[in-house]
Amino acid sequence: MESQGQYIGSNSGMDQKEGKIANQRKAGTCESILRILAFMLTLTAAVVLGVSKQTEIVSMKILPTSPPIDVPATTKWHYLSAFVYFLVANATACAYAAFSLVLSLGNRGTKSGLGLVIIFLDLLMVALLFSGNGAATAIGLMGYQGNSHVQWNKVCNVFGRFCNQVAAAIVLSLLGSLVFMYLVVLAALGLHRRSK
Amino acid sequence: MESQGQYIGSNSGMDQKEGKIANQRKAGTCESILRILAFMLTLTAAVVLGVSKQTEIVSMKILPTSPPIDVPATTKWHYLSAFVYFLVANATACAYAAFSLVLSLGNRGTKSGLGLVIIFLDLLMVALLFSGNGAATAIGLMGYQGNSHVQWNKVCNVFGRFCNQVAAAIVLSLLGSLVFMYLVVLAALGLHRRSK
Repeated sequence: MESQGQYIGSNSGMDQKEGKIANQRKAGTCESILRILAFMLTLTAAVVLGVSKQTEIVSMKILPTSPPIDVPATTKWHYLSAFVYFLVANATACAYAAFSLVLSLGNRGTKSGLGLVIIFLDLLMVALLFSGNGAATAIGLMGYQGNSHVQWNKVCNVFGRFCNQVAAAIVLSLLGSLVFMYLVVLAALGLHRRSK
Repeated sequence: MESQGQYIGSNSGMDQKEGKIANQRKAGTCESILRILAFMLTLTAAVVLGVSKQTEIVSMKILPTSPPIDVPATTKWHYLSAFVYFLVANATACAYAAFSLVLSLGNRGTKSGLGLVIIFLDLLMVALLFSGNGAATAIGLMGYQGNSHVQWNKVCNVFGRFCNQVAAAIVLSLLGSLVFMYLVVLAALGLHRRSK
């Protein structure tokens, strides 16, 4: 009986260990999927903004008394420093997502300090992406609404397509930032579970 | 000899336990100081922006052909939605810093899920503050430099004191965001140490 009890006990211990390994694998796969998603979202955000360019014919007066003449006006993403920052932030986050995917695959199942470094870098991406989103949204909103107090006129009534592309890039980047936030949350949850 | 060995062993175990408790206390005190610092930084950032207001006499033309006349022009923080968002983000982070200080004091030394909730909320504050900083910096920079492509003129040459106050608020808020980031890093380090 005693030996049978021992056998059952050892079997249950093995089951527990196998269950733990299966859980770790599941968490690892989930992390990899999230990193691929973050990569795709930030890459698409950077590309959507990077290719945004619009030329429109606008009426302008050279002199206050002269009649208006039609001139072509072009807008590009790199005309506004907030959009340059947004694109650099998304490109950095995209490159990091690919790099961290490789790192996390190598780190899977280990308890080394590398996991901790990945959490810190994920957190850094959250800060970088959110500041980029804030900057691009502030300038995008100004272009959409204008502001009479500082006499900055809206430009989205002329460059509608460009503004739509900027809005799409911001939404994609916001989703990418949320994925990075979720990765930090998942890592903290994993550490909390292991610390019990 | 054996009993002496046992005595030494038990003494060393007690020392270890005492050392662990002392370390936990030290980490708890450090966390409290950081939360008080975050509270003060975000509060000051919100107040510095909240009291910013400047009135200047500017020359304006009512009609293109009429002579310029001097009119008083006022600028306030709530004229620009990015500054409103920045102030709300800092006020929220400030209130949360005070609330989380009480929570973390109650949670000190325990392994409950409350510690995890505090990490998530700290992370949320990082995202909120960085997006607010990004938005305010983008608009502040536009006011400082202007942009010829979208014909938004700089306003900081007229409202210099207002712009300086905005810059000071952004720096304070950035420091506050870094404190919240550091709190997340510290919490992750603590969990990692306990999971070993």
